Amino acid sequence: MAFKIKINLNLHLLLLFLITAVCLALASKDPELKQCKHQCKVQRQFDEQQKRDCERSCDEYYKMKKEKGRNYESEEEEEEEEEVENPYVFDDEHFVGQIETGEGKIKVLQKFTQRSHLLRGIENFRVSIVEANPSTFVVPTHFDAEIILFVAQGRGTITVIKEKRGSFELKCGDVFRIPSGAPFYFINKDEHRKLKIVKLLQSTSVPGHFQTFQPAGGENPESFYTAFSWDLLEAAFKIPRDKLERFFKQQKPGTIIKASREQIRSLSRHEEIIPKIWPFSEGETERPFNLLKQHPCQSNKFGRLFEAYPDEFSQLRDLGVAIAFANITEGSMVAPHYNSKSMKIAVVLDGQGGFQMACPHLSSSSRRSGRWSEREEERKGERTYQKIRGRLSRGVVFVVPAGHPFSVFASPNHSLQIVCFEVNAYGNTKYFLAGKENIVNKMESIARELGFNTPGREVERMFKQQEEEFFFPGPNQQEHEWADA
Amino acid sequence: MAFKIKINLNLHLLLLFLITAVCLALASKDPELKQCKHQCKVQRQFDEQQKRDCERSCDEYYKMKKEKGRNYESEEEEEEEEEVENPYVFDDEHFVGQIETGEGKIKVLQKFTQRSHLLRGIENFRVSIVEANPSTFVVPTHFDAEIILFVAQGRGTITVIKEKRGSFELKCGDVFRIPSGAPFYFINKDEHRKLKIVKLLQSTSVPGHFQTFQPAGGENPESFYTAFSWDLLEAAFKIPRDKLERFFKQQKPGTIIKASREQIRSLSRHEEIIPKIWPFSEGETERPFNLLKQHPCQSNKFGRLFEAYPDEFSQLRDLGVAIAFANITEGSMVAPHYNSKSMKIAVVLDGQGGFQMACPHLSSSSRRSGRWSEREEERKGERTYQKIRGRLSRGVVFVVPAGHPFSVFASPNHSLQIVCFEVNAYGNTKYFLAGKENIVNKMESIARELGFNTPGREVERMFKQQEEEFFFPGPNQQEHEWADA
Amino acid sequence: MAFKIKINLNLHLLLLFLITAVCLALASKDPELKQCKHQCKVQRQFDEQQKRDCERSCDEYYKMKKEKGRNYESEEEEEEEEEVENPYVFDDEHFVGQIETGEGKIKVLQKFTQRSHLLRGIENFRVSIVEANPSTFVVPTHFDAEIILFVAQGRGTITVIKEKRGSFELKCGDVFRIPSGAPFYFINKDEHRKLKIVKLLQSTSVPGHFQTFQPAGGENPESFYTAFSWDLLEAAFKIPRDKLERFFKQQKPGTIIKASREQIRSLSRHEEIIPKIWPFSEGETERPFNLLKQHPCQSNKFGRLFEAYPDEFSQLRDLGVAIAFANITEGSMVAPHYNSKSMKIAVVLDGQGGFQMACPHLSSSSRRSGRWSEREEERKGERTYQKIRGRLSRGVVFVVPAGHPFSVFASPNHSLQIVCFEVNAYGNTKYFLAGKENIVNKMESIARELGFNTPGREVERMFKQQEEEFFFPGPNQQEHEWADA
Repeated sequence: MAFKIKINLNLHLLLLFLITAVCLALASKDPELKQCKHQCKVQRQFDEQQKRDCERSCDEYYKMKKEKGRNYESEEEEEEEEEVENPYVFDDEHFVGQIETGEGKIKVLQKFTQRSHLLRGIENFRVSIVEANPSTFVVPTHFDAEIILFVAQGRGTITVIKEKRGSFELKCGDVFRIPSGAPFYFINKDEHRKLKIVKLLQSTSVPGHFQTFQPAGGENPESFYTAFSWDLLEAAFKIPRDKLERFFKQQKPGTIIKASREQIRSLSRHEEIIPKIWPFSEGETERPFNLLKQHPCQSNKFGRLFEAYPDEFSQLRDLGVAIAFANITEGSMVAPHYNSKSMKIAVVLDGQGGFQMACPHLSSSSRRSGRWSEREEERKGERTYQKIRGRLSRGVVFVVPAGHPFSVFASPNHSLQIVCFEVNAYGNTKYFLAGKENIVNKMESIARELGFNTPGREVERMFKQQEEEFFFPGPNQQEHEWADA
Repeated sequence: MAFKIKINLNLHLLLLFLITAVCLALASKDPELKQCKHQCKVQRQFDEQQKRDCERSCDEYYKMKKEKGRNYESEEEEEEEEEVENPYVFDDEHFVGQIETGEGKIKVLQKFTQRSHLLRGIENFRVSIVEANPSTFVVPTHFDAEIILFVAQGRGTITVIKEKRGSFELKCGDVFRIPSGAPFYFINKDEHRKLKIVKLLQSTSVPGHFQTFQPAGGENPESFYTAFSWDLLEAAFKIPRDKLERFFKQQKPGTIIKASREQIRSLSRHEEIIPKIWPFSEGETERPFNLLKQHPCQSNKFGRLFEAYPDEFSQLRDLGVAIAFANITEGSMVAPHYNSKSMKIAVVLDGQGGFQMACPHLSSSSRRSGRWSEREEERKGERTYQKIRGRLSRGVVFVVPAGHPFSVFASPNHSLQIVCFEVNAYGNTKYFLAGKENIVNKMESIARELGFNTPGREVERMFKQQEEEFFFPGPNQQEHEWADA
Repeated sequence: MAFKIKINLNLHLLLLFLITAVCLALASKDPELKQCKHQCKVQRQFDEQQKRDCERSCDEYYKMKKEKGRNYESEEEEEEEEEVENPYVFDDEHFVGQIETGEGKIKVLQKFTQRSHLLRGIENFRVSIVEANPSTFVVPTHFDAEIILFVAQGRGTITVIKEKRGSFELKCGDVFRIPSGAPFYFINKDEHRKLKIVKLLQSTSVPGHFQTFQPAGGENPESFYTAFSWDLLEAAFKIPRDKLERFFKQQKPGTIIKASREQIRSLSRHEEIIPKIWPFSEGETERPFNLLKQHPCQSNKFGRLFEAYPDEFSQLRDLGVAIAFANITEGSMVAPHYNSKSMKIAVVLDGQGGFQMACPHLSSSSRRSGRWSEREEERKGERTYQKIRGRLSRGVVFVVPAGHPFSVFASPNHSLQIVCFEVNAYGNTKYFLAGKENIVNKMESIARELGFNTPGREVERMFKQQEEEFFFPGPNQQEHEWADA
């Protein structure tokens, strides 16, 4: 007996420490493995053998945890996985939703905060991409989210139900706003090309989450009517149960379905009969506007930029979101610059290229926890920048927080098309870091001299050499030009 | 020695795994027991006996955890408990605050996010119900919260202190706004009936929490003055300590206290002397308005609906909250419908009935974690709806998120009275799913045909049969009518 | 073998319980040690010896946890540590950022929510204090945060870059707004005194966090340009790599650097050439205004209070922040009072004194978790107040939530200067709890009588004795006066 207890005690300590190691690791968001082992070392009461055992256990514990992490939805897990690399660039693997019907597909980007705490500022926004095959109908649905949609390719007609019904033609470059809860359906009326739509959604009921609701449905997707009890539906519709069941169960439409030429034609025809002024409450759906028909705010032979700001377009007003379209000529680049207030959510529509961003250096701990570890960083007064890099190709999404200097360039042989949603766009200013109008040129020369600790003339030579604005020749094609410098 | 270590090692593994099981279970919000056991099975290093031990431990661990869970405030616990069922309906057990004095009672509904992450959208709002006995005085108090109160029963007089004092009569159906921090007190001047008040509170200082502050008090509730040191109070009041102590300690008023007929009369009299225009900053307290005296926005022999929107009533403007009162005739129902933007917080005042809502299906994991498990759900593109059900009776509170189709019905022999606070009400639209004006009738017939995959005429027959609007005969009383269908 | 298993089983239980104890302790934020031990006691399967072992382990576990807590950034840890005492007062140890250059220093206060959940309401705000030595230049930087700065001491010139450049003189008492993302630099043009600036920051990209970005830099701080690849910079600047490297690597300016008399003079001169009307978008930077030159809203021989509200000053409008400066005469005090809506973030500039606040009593559990434990508190209907106390001296920061009664007093021989940022200031009202205009005097005498359960005349005598307003003689100097009372 006394003997057993002795062992207990011994194991007790061991056990005790391990629990501490593990739970502490869970509590503080630090590199667990490192910490777990660290604690093995500092246990005075352990002999060498025990310390080795202990460290081994850490390894096993952590290995196991990671495996499990995958099988079970756990935000913490996610973050730790992802953030070791760069949480600002998303590709296919980060699209969680995926509805594949024979006639098209719908992808939803993961929740931003599932990727990193650093994206908390846009937690409430989601990105979704819809592709509908030629001659198809996307069935009536409503969302518990505000929607801004951008037509990336194709021709369609969309119908939205409010007090009245309104139908609108959709062309490439169109921006259209669907207010939260409004039922809508649309067609791809092109007989040959897909209709591609990029959506920005802002949740209405659960922050960062949205849900879709269909009146019609079968097995899956279901009709939301079937969530009510049959006797309630009998009363609501004044239709006997058997009829209701037949009606709501038989159908298996799916979300995107084939439509006949006649159906397409008749659904398209409606767009002529749109009322000139259409009664919608302020800041909500109105006829679409075409972004590409706006006067480009930047344009030269290296690229063009189109922008629509919320103060000009009532569709964007209440969300405070701007939308922009950039077309970067092959081998060209966008000037390094930053936005003073807005967070950019960019979706690559086509082409190839690269993305670079300066991000104040994250300590190992904060890189995992997604927090700016003041303790470790600031105290030392350290200020360095993490080099964020991303390869850009169709379907890639990248995020640029306010204040963060970044640049984008097209590959030498493909131009690059990007649509950008700028969240928190009111009062936003673009600050250029190179080319005409760059911020350094705007400083007093003594300030430049002091700041750069270099004769003013020399600083000037550095920042005045590039005379283009916003779009420049890109990294891979100006060897010859340097000679002149 | 070597021997001890051997055992250690052995136990080490066992221990190691168990910690993992348990802590992992804590980390990922998954069905812990299931997971814990699952991990027992997958331990290669265990023999059968060990695996069995291990599973048994899981059982014990979990049992223990649940017991403890009850004794110790733990949001996690709460959620897991609740969300397995339906987090949208609250009854007595979900009222946490409970002040019972001889002269009345005050109940506070638990924090919404304590119930479920799905209610994060209304985290900052709280519900409280006050019942004051006949001829009572509710002592002066201020809250760190904005308050909208609705008089559900009885007659009173309320006094609010701002730059000046203002007194107002309160009748059944009155809606009154008390700005954050304003001290107020009120009386139930009826000598026979209780005064019943339903409050919606929006926190000012700590999101989702509010606190009450009383100048007068004794043991409990205390006077907030007693939180200051006596020497400070001596200086502040220019009154010696002994007098102060006697003054602030002796009294034991409680929160709701009996008042004499004379006191009631004199406190009531004041309402005549209210200034016509009363100086209050925009969007804040003004004289009450009576919801039931508004023109009903829906009314037929099956029920009546009264609504006050924030754009019409300055008291509601800055909170963006609408308030509605529904009286559903016995045996009648409300049309299945949804709100496009607002989240409904409904309090049943009287009667009996039922509540049904369609909620996009939550996976087992998300049902617990309160998160919409994108991983599991979306990837499969699954879209089904959870059937939310609730029995309604006096004091029950239910929540309806934006976009969620729902319906309410009264029992065959009791009419049902409900007061609703609609959070985020600006630009909200009600969409009807049955009866006149239902969304399906507003669609083009080809869209209906494609959507429901049924001949247009047939769809029309389904959705045109019910000719009433909003209030219908309910589930249990129209056998005969179906014949006609 | 059977033997080993027997032991396993035994230890199993022990282990099992301990894990439960520990992890439970982590899950529910309750006094862990207490809980851990509590669970030792309730283990039926343990004999006395085991129970004792078990409790000892709890002690060790907790000790260890605390030690570790210090080494590893862990919000949980922080809170538990801090909140046992008072989370509303911050001194030197709570400043995390610390940049010490030879020529000055920059301190950043820890994130409020790192201190306590109770401060969630101001999570998005941060406080920073800058001290620049005489004749120094603070190099060009931009923040991903909105900044309100208050000049606590000295004379400088600040330059902000927007579409154009604007330079402004800074004197003691000046309030200046720097919009998020705008690059700025400033000088201390005094040859003898330090320039002291207090900043309130509101994050733009990551809630509760801000980052700084410098175009110029060397090893540390780095230039953000160096986060881009050299080939990209070559293209952007049309400058060959070797020149770029030399330019961006050579410099080691630091953040605050010495400037020559000539440089200072020339940078100061610019202030004359400021455009009369300067093109800035609404609610953003404009010329500074001087708080101390406003008409004091309270003033007597015991102190003076200056306030600037967001509705009068466009610089404060979009942030909804008011700024106030209080100068309390030695031995005097501020009347106990509270703000109806705003949360006060106060920074002590100079002097010595004390702070007292009434905080609705937090249960032991909530004191740790920073949550208002409804379960335990409300159910009992208990309402008492925690006595919050703080010693005030230069550099101390304290927070006063809306609705919380508080008072501040100066020591008998030092006057006290405090600058206050009032977050959520729109429609805020000050309610006085003593002195002229106190809320009790505004109540009907019957209400006072009922509330204080004391004859009205007596209540009146208590609350009418102090005739001063807002500033009173303080705790330590009126023995004689009491005689008169």
